[in-house]
Amino acid sequence: VSDTVQMLASLLVVLVAAKVAGELFERLKQPAVIGELLVGIAIGPHALGLVHPTSALQVVSSIGVAVLMFAVGLETRSSEVFKVGRQAMIVAAGGVVLPLAAGYAFGHFLGYSQPEALFVGTALVATSVGITARVLADRGLIATRVARIVLAAAVIDDVLGMLVLSIVTGVARNGLDFGSVALALAEAVAFITIAAVFLPKVVQASEHVLDRLHVKNAPFSVALGVMLGSALLAEAIGLAAIVGAFFAGMAFADGPERWELESRTEPLYEWLVPYFFVAMGMQVDVKLLASPAVLVPGSVLVVIAVITKVVGSGLGMLSEGPKSALAVGVGMVPRGEVGLIVAAVGVRLGLVPQTVYAMIVLVIVVSTLIVPPLLPRLMKGLQPAEEGPTPGVSEGHFALECSYRTVT
Amino acid sequence: VSDTVQMLASLLVVLVAAKVAGELFERLKQPAVIGELLVGIAIGPHALGLVHPTSALQVVSSIGVAVLMFAVGLETRSSEVFKVGRQAMIVAAGGVVLPLAAGYAFGHFLGYSQPEALFVGTALVATSVGITARVLADRGLIATRVARIVLAAAVIDDVLGMLVLSIVTGVARNGLDFGSVALALAEAVAFITIAAVFLPKVVQASEHVLDRLHVKNAPFSVALGVMLGSALLAEAIGLAAIVGAFFAGMAFADGPERWELESRTEPLYEWLVPYFFVAMGMQVDVKLLASPAVLVPGSVLVVIAVITKVVGSGLGMLSEGPKSALAVGVGMVPRGEVGLIVAAVGVRLGLVPQTVYAMIVLVIVVSTLIVPPLLPRLMKGLQPAEEGPTPGVSEGHFALECSYRTVT
Repeated sequence: VSDTVQMLASLLVVLVAAKVAGELFERLKQPAVIGELLVGIAIGPHALGLVHPTSALQVVSSIGVAVLMFAVGLETRSSEVFKVGRQAMIVAAGGVVLPLAAGYAFGHFLGYSQPEALFVGTALVATSVGITARVLADRGLIATRVARIVLAAAVIDDVLGMLVLSIVTGVARNGLDFGSVALALAEAVAFITIAAVFLPKVVQASEHVLDRLHVKNAPFSVALGVMLGSALLAEAIGLAAIVGAFFAGMAFADGPERWELESRTEPLYEWLVPYFFVAMGMQVDVKLLASPAVLVPGSVLVVIAVITKVVGSGLGMLSEGPKSALAVGVGMVPRGEVGLIVAAVGVRLGLVPQTVYAMIVLVIVVSTLIVPPLLPRLMKGLQPAEEGPTPGVSEGHFALECSYRTVT
Repeated sequence: VSDTVQMLASLLVVLVAAKVAGELFERLKQPAVIGELLVGIAIGPHALGLVHPTSALQVVSSIGVAVLMFAVGLETRSSEVFKVGRQAMIVAAGGVVLPLAAGYAFGHFLGYSQPEALFVGTALVATSVGITARVLADRGLIATRVARIVLAAAVIDDVLGMLVLSIVTGVARNGLDFGSVALALAEAVAFITIAAVFLPKVVQASEHVLDRLHVKNAPFSVALGVMLGSALLAEAIGLAAIVGAFFAGMAFADGPERWELESRTEPLYEWLVPYFFVAMGMQVDVKLLASPAVLVPGSVLVVIAVITKVVGSGLGMLSEGPKSALAVGVGMVPRGEVGLIVAAVGVRLGLVPQTVYAMIVLVIVVSTLIVPPLLPRLMKGLQPAEEGPTPGVSEGHFALECSYRTVT
């Protein structure tokens, strides 16, 4: 069997499996991304063995995750994040600190090393805004104050999650002494500051230059170049490539409509991103997942992940009544792509062993599946917010975040 | 240096080089694809050595060439090819037979083995419709009868080129005896018949099923799946993967507008296809290209390629006067992507040695560069054709074929 045949076969099988699973989950009114993850477990080497990791799959899924984070960044307008209400900040901060601390403590309790425990905590941090946004949009609840705060907080959450991941990666590489932490923090803050403040200004300043280029759709090509360059820089200085890809997207989020960056990224997203989720599923050892050694602590971790997010994020909303607080807390529960990405970085660094990886996948699947049926019930009777755009979330947000999950 | 850093660095350098070269060539009013090929020669391991072939580049350029051929197929409406005039058929046939025979004879004369000589001939076959279409569209000459015949003939040319490539590949693998040729011809004809006649009907019949799928932009995802599947099948039965990708595109060419397959393929094309051309350039040994052992026979091959195409295609137009015949012949001269793809298949099979590869690249570069300044002059004073759509070429044709070459 030639290399080409092997490459094409693995790309074909994974694409078909991903889209069939996505279709099935869409019809069950569940997020397609969970279908992709589960079908990856099913067809992977630990279960059916239909596909084995080829170098083509590895390359395409690496590109896929960069495209994913770039697309998420593209929907994260820094201008709107900066002017977002104090409320969303508090909600986000509570929802970051509590799960991080609890995950770390739990890992410590299980006897993991400090970097390992830190990765458990970090994987619990970021809310998957796509899944919650999808549920809210589907049920026509997007105009409520609760929805706005959840979405804005989830965006801030993404940025804080990237910051935590950068620091944890640094600590994992250099150990948990004061110097290393300070260095990692400094590096991360420097990179994020440059990427989040300076880069968008550069993009803005070069707007007219980009428009005058002769290459067709030059701004799109330049944005892809910036994505690769920023990912390369982040990876090279010891952060994760995806952190760079995210901020590259954010730098172009305020770019002019005529560049059509979101609609041009969509086909890349639809084709390449599923490879990442299926590949992530393929790494899960089902036998391990079903063993008590994973299932018991994993279930505890699920409970910790849910409770700490509900409490941590809900606390900041308590001033607006317990009903709103509970709805916001539950809305922040789903961990999706970002939690998985954190786990993937940990696996690559050799800091997330198979057992822990399986536990994190369990957390992601369960936390994502429980919210869609729950949230609309909790939001019954809540008041719609005053008019105006949803803070921190641009119009196209739902379109892209849910890009291969929607269509009714 | 980690794998990720290496992967990102190679993807970044090639993208930047391709787009900078493309920009430069656009400004010089030359096809961007030639810029990409030349910059590949420049940055490759035989010259500056800025990039070495990584597994990531190999995977991405393989995907890129599949996307390229899929996109070309997407613009080739079989319904329109079938009803196209006798004239275009004759022009195409003459333009295929003469260069094929002359290239083969020249290879034979130079002492190459039969399969090697066949590859030289095959590389001279296919006209690059994109480059000619671009020139005609830019100069407002697209409505002339000459332009219509050139474009329709170039499309038929692509199909014949695929057929010839399939047979030559079969012969190359199994030797030039009657049985092998018959088998290769039978396989190729069977595959092409199924792919060109049966597959479009399947797509048409499943239109409503595809529209009812819940996955977002399901027809696009299905088309990508068919592309991979058809490429896999073609490769597995001994044809080339690109033949499969081309016919997959053709099967969807008559698909409904609302699927937006062309505009969704565009971003994939803009990002991934340049990797193929740069990678092709990287394989050229400049020192070899400049050596008399390549430059002398290479120059002869260029002359052969130009003359046989002008004569072979022009002959079929002689009934409409020598001026029209010359214009059509010259319009068919550029060999672009398809000639390069043929050479690439030959290199992979070990049948196109470095010297021959360098000669073919020379033919492609020169034959492509001489036409844009020449053609408008030859067409001066020719009558515009009667009203009606251009045969064999859909509206969107120029948009995609030239997708990263245009914008004025």
